[in-house]
Amino acid sequence: MPTYAELNKEELTTLKAQLEEEYTAIKAKGLSLNMARGKPSAAQLELSMPMLSLVSTTEDCKAEDGTDCRNYGVLDGLPEAKRLMAAMIDDEPENIIIGGNASLSLMYESVARCWNFGTLGSTPWCKLDQVKWLCPVPGYDRHFGITEAFGIEMIPVPMTDEGPDMDMVEELVANDAAIKGIWCVPKYSNPGGVTYSDEVVRRLAAMKCAAEDFRIFWDNAYSIHHLYDEPENQDQLLDIAVACREAGNPNRYYKFASTSKVTHPGAGISALAASPENLAEIKKRMGVGTIGYDKVNQLRHVKFLHDAKGLAEHMARHAATLRPKFELVDQKLEEGLKEVGGCSWSKPRGGYFVSFDAPEGTAQRAVSLAKEAGVTMTGAGATWPLKHDPHNSNIRIAPTLPPLEELDAALEVFVCCVKLAYVEKLLAE
Amino acid sequence: MPTYAELNKEELTTLKAQLEEEYTAIKAKGLSLNMARGKPSAAQLELSMPMLSLVSTTEDCKAEDGTDCRNYGVLDGLPEAKRLMAAMIDDEPENIIIGGNASLSLMYESVARCWNFGTLGSTPWCKLDQVKWLCPVPGYDRHFGITEAFGIEMIPVPMTDEGPDMDMVEELVANDAAIKGIWCVPKYSNPGGVTYSDEVVRRLAAMKCAAEDFRIFWDNAYSIHHLYDEPENQDQLLDIAVACREAGNPNRYYKFASTSKVTHPGAGISALAASPENLAEIKKRMGVGTIGYDKVNQLRHVKFLHDAKGLAEHMARHAATLRPKFELVDQKLEEGLKEVGGCSWSKPRGGYFVSFDAPEGTAQRAVSLAKEAGVTMTGAGATWPLKHDPHNSNIRIAPTLPPLEELDAALEVFVCCVKLAYVEKLLAE
Repeated sequence: MPTYAELNKEELTTLKAQLEEEYTAIKAKGLSLNMARGKPSAAQLELSMPMLSLVSTTEDCKAEDGTDCRNYGVLDGLPEAKRLMAAMIDDEPENIIIGGNASLSLMYESVARCWNFGTLGSTPWCKLDQVKWLCPVPGYDRHFGITEAFGIEMIPVPMTDEGPDMDMVEELVANDAAIKGIWCVPKYSNPGGVTYSDEVVRRLAAMKCAAEDFRIFWDNAYSIHHLYDEPENQDQLLDIAVACREAGNPNRYYKFASTSKVTHPGAGISALAASPENLAEIKKRMGVGTIGYDKVNQLRHVKFLHDAKGLAEHMARHAATLRPKFELVDQKLEEGLKEVGGCSWSKPRGGYFVSFDAPEGTAQRAVSLAKEAGVTMTGAGATWPLKHDPHNSNIRIAPTLPPLEELDAALEVFVCCVKLAYVEKLLAE
Repeated sequence: MPTYAELNKEELTTLKAQLEEEYTAIKAKGLSLNMARGKPSAAQLELSMPMLSLVSTTEDCKAEDGTDCRNYGVLDGLPEAKRLMAAMIDDEPENIIIGGNASLSLMYESVARCWNFGTLGSTPWCKLDQVKWLCPVPGYDRHFGITEAFGIEMIPVPMTDEGPDMDMVEELVANDAAIKGIWCVPKYSNPGGVTYSDEVVRRLAAMKCAAEDFRIFWDNAYSIHHLYDEPENQDQLLDIAVACREAGNPNRYYKFASTSKVTHPGAGISALAASPENLAEIKKRMGVGTIGYDKVNQLRHVKFLHDAKGLAEHMARHAATLRPKFELVDQKLEEGLKEVGGCSWSKPRGGYFVSFDAPEGTAQRAVSLAKEAGVTMTGAGATWPLKHDPHNSNIRIAPTLPPLEELDAALEVFVCCVKLAYVEKLLAE
């Protein structure tokens, strides 16, 4: 079979008519399917139901050091909650601060803190003429939303199979002191599913930065979110904290994580890990705005997940429901698009997304066609700063929320829309 | 009996020796008592234990509109949680945003939002040469901590029996556009126990402000925290929202409240109420840093407290344990200090504090003596901006945490320390 790019105008016109017929038939079904956001499915949420009953008596509310978790206090989190989250993000409990139900808030507050107050004696970023930020692309729209809100200039850096293009990163940060940070989802990245190689982690930790207050925002959102149980099928990530210490830049990173996709996104706990110097400053600043986060909920998580082993067992149950969905995505795209040509997509071993590259110039049209046919995707362009994908190509597929049969139907629609958008483009050339 | 001020040097010297003997005996007891912070007692925390078991099944996790509260979403809170908090702060559900476990965070974020982004089109406060703030004194140390953190110049305004000195407030805000806000605890104020009169509320709402983006930070922390059940023994507060609307300044206020002292301080929910214009802006900004707060905990609160009637019944149970404590404070101070002279204190009908004015120049010494004898008070000066009470007189008594017999012992110590500090001062004159 020839690929679409190899077809002549007549063949394309015939194909377009067929696809339009197919599309009309799909639209007539009146579907309402959603592959837009990385939300756990109802079946996944069920896995954590026992957690909600684990703190119900007065005795249950006592922390291991005797703290009554119902009352005020404990700014940076219970010791046992720090141990749990340390196990999740591969750090020491003493380096952890426990937050509220969203690591996104911890990231926002970290940018805001540096913005208003500077960090470790540096000039507050709000006092600078310009602040810039490195944004590996495709990346996470809510990250870009934070830097956008503060008027920070975002510089896209292409992702490779091993993480951000480090030649470009090193060149940029060495020569521009206005570049103050980089957004990283270093494991099973959003949306590409890439895990940074050891070399990339070491280069990030060791690179020469013109800005001494340069910070790596290390959003390890998918640290334990493997799709496969066998260790050899799981990605491994070098710890940025260790790499930064070894490189003599111990304060360069902030690590973030949460239980949003472990227990319940609406009611989880979050964590930040940083160097002792960073931690001392963060605690001083955060103590102005809170007396401490929800300790009862911290206890629920500790009593439910226990430790690294408990986390791994629980995540294997998630993987069991997620694996067929990711395999279905790959199968449907393979079946539907392999011979079309011009498309590519990731085959992640963990995380929540498949990154799909449609033929250049067709992503917006494909997403818009899908929406009209009742299938909501993440907006085309969302994986780029300011929602502007210069190639109009990348689409984030979020296959976790819909049940398997709905996902199957949604992918049928998606494949048809990608093909139709491609044909339209080829005919317009 | 003559008051201390009427005693001669010889009499004072004798008295001092007696008090020192008494103080030494107290110290020898090795007490460890705490009247520092407005924390509910263990008995009060017990009142809300049933709440922790009210959301445990899948069905329990459904909001009334069918939302699965375990998953992401619902930025501004569940409709039923808005209804509950509206009942608490006397507003309409559609004017409410539900936050995390601390109204303090909502206040911090509101200052930070205006600081970084301005409000309704005004210049961000961080871009101004100077920002000033009105701080009714004595007031709440954590309020002052927020404005201090942003480098805002705080102007103390004396509290009267009806609220802040409005002649002074009106004069200041009319003539200085750098004054952008005022901290108010308008009902059973912290620490004075004062409820603003209708006239004060109306004057705040109607006063001419040089700054068009002046905001009243209305921390209605004790809206339903009465000590007495009979309506005639409960303070009533005019709604600032209504007053601002009637005065043609509908965007002038932000109202705050939380369930910290209703259910569990460590695990409550908070709320902000504002005008539709303010709300739209706040939601837009807050959506950058969060996808929504803990909805499962919102449901727990709704299922436990229900509505205004449920809230009132629950608060009556709190009042039953708090009333004897506040009455004991008044009784012990009356017995111990009436004939000493030079001291005065509040007799609140609600809230969490008694405001105590020691003889000028003695508060720090009294608190320090108490600390040495094992009784922790709120630091002297804490009720003033920058912890600087120019009279060195005001001490906040927080009688809620200790059981009655411990409170009795702590007040014995406190009375002795106040007397000793006073005698020392008179002898040094």
